Amino acid sequence: MRFVRYGKAGAEQPGVLDADGRVRDLSGVVTDLAGDVLAQLPVADPESLPLVQGEPRLGPPVAGVGKFIGIGLNYSDHAAEAGMEPPKEPIVFMKATSSISGPYDPVLLPRGSEKSDWEVELGVVIGKPAKYVSNAKALEHVAGYCIVNDVSERAFQIERGGQWTKGKGCDTFGPIGPWLVTPDEVGDPQSLDMALDLNGARAQTGNTASMIFSVAEIISYLSQMMSLQPGDVIATGTPPGVGMGAKPPRYLSEGDVMELTVAGLGHQRQTVGRDI
Amino acid sequence: MRFVRYGKAGAEQPGVLDADGRVRDLSGVVTDLAGDVLAQLPVADPESLPLVQGEPRLGPPVAGVGKFIGIGLNYSDHAAEAGMEPPKEPIVFMKATSSISGPYDPVLLPRGSEKSDWEVELGVVIGKPAKYVSNAKALEHVAGYCIVNDVSERAFQIERGGQWTKGKGCDTFGPIGPWLVTPDEVGDPQSLDMALDLNGARAQTGNTASMIFSVAEIISYLSQMMSLQPGDVIATGTPPGVGMGAKPPRYLSEGDVMELTVAGLGHQRQTVGRDI
Repeated sequence: MRFVRYGKAGAEQPGVLDADGRVRDLSGVVTDLAGDVLAQLPVADPESLPLVQGEPRLGPPVAGVGKFIGIGLNYSDHAAEAGMEPPKEPIVFMKATSSISGPYDPVLLPRGSEKSDWEVELGVVIGKPAKYVSNAKALEHVAGYCIVNDVSERAFQIERGGQWTKGKGCDTFGPIGPWLVTPDEVGDPQSLDMALDLNGARAQTGNTASMIFSVAEIISYLSQMMSLQPGDVIATGTPPGVGMGAKPPRYLSEGDVMELTVAGLGHQRQTVGRDI
Repeated sequence: MRFVRYGKAGAEQPGVLDADGRVRDLSGVVTDLAGDVLAQLPVADPESLPLVQGEPRLGPPVAGVGKFIGIGLNYSDHAAEAGMEPPKEPIVFMKATSSISGPYDPVLLPRGSEKSDWEVELGVVIGKPAKYVSNAKALEHVAGYCIVNDVSERAFQIERGGQWTKGKGCDTFGPIGPWLVTPDEVGDPQSLDMALDLNGARAQTGNTASMIFSVAEIISYLSQMMSLQPGDVIATGTPPGVGMGAKPPRYLSEGDVMELTVAGLGHQRQTVGRDI
């Protein structure tokens, strides 16, 4: 199943795609795609639900995100690109939940930003609470998967003193979606092709097979340190091809267009603007 | 005014203290101390509200916390104790919102923890959205103040590879409260005595006058990088006397008792247990 949330920002309704990819209204079945609903997503027949008219905006496909967790340098080739040793344990940081936006919403450069960068990632949405879970059981806690663009201001992240979170949590720096795709439909989360195009030219190419720490290992690892809750989103790291790794580095400017894909999870597209 | 949330964890009701320090039921006035309610806290006469019977548990005095932001090394004497240079810009990290607990709830050491530590801090609760605010206007966005114990697992924080968030977000590592105290009652947030006793012996002593970056500067700084939302909590750093700085270092064990005070904000008390 492919779930969506559609409508104006902050007032999205739950929906589900039918076999033809049209949005069906799920609001008669669940109030929202959040909290306990994620532990047992409805298996209604989409064709039996009302068709949503027009082409509404798609928002993030999960609501009530309590934690938006990022994993750093989780692709060996990206770590090399960043000039850093592959980590021995997952690198964990937090993105502000206020950075979350829809998959086609604009990405706005914050004031003073000169080094904003893109990162296509596999996003994992937690469905059932996870604490001290094993690798073997970890994927049982997943509600589904989505694309995340882990937009990152590199100067804020690296040059402004301590802790990456400064450059990771700017408003609009967390496009999520378009779909929350259930695990049965995704299959093996460690064999998904992914790509990011900047202004129509391929920038990032990767496959989740190159992750240093698998989705299951990440969930298990995090759950040793904090409980994971329904609606928590984990951005699992990015493959090579970010702007910081280009020679010379190449960062986002107003008018740039990012297009992201992860196999089976749909497509994102953001135009870059300036936060005024 | 001193606001509280009382009752079982996860089912707290809003309350307010009367002149005698007794809890009055505020649930007929507001649904909870969260979101937009924090932008304009009610000024009801507490004596006119129903008296709450018994001595209910006090929970965190704010609900719906979207971001739990910490500021590192913000007291010059604590930075020296930690063997680090005073930062040139605020050090920003995130505590998991799932770490939030009540002021008298137990603090549970996560599995494998050998270096859990205490940090008494002035907590700031945002009331009105803040984005690109100046130092001069920053305090207008504050709903109130509270005590925060920024409990920190130092091995997770420092020895497990990149980013402090690993040791800051364990469940129960964020006691908040007991009260949300409005700014008019707190007065100058930069002249508050604070202390933490461990098993009855003074461990930390400080005053918010020693902050490197003031509350106003922190809010203004953060608001350049991300919007602050009603209910966001900022832990503004800790004075000297943490366990990591002792010679030899001294960390929390089962049965230890932490007692925290910040002038005008009440008192916290936590007994240390083990997360099983």
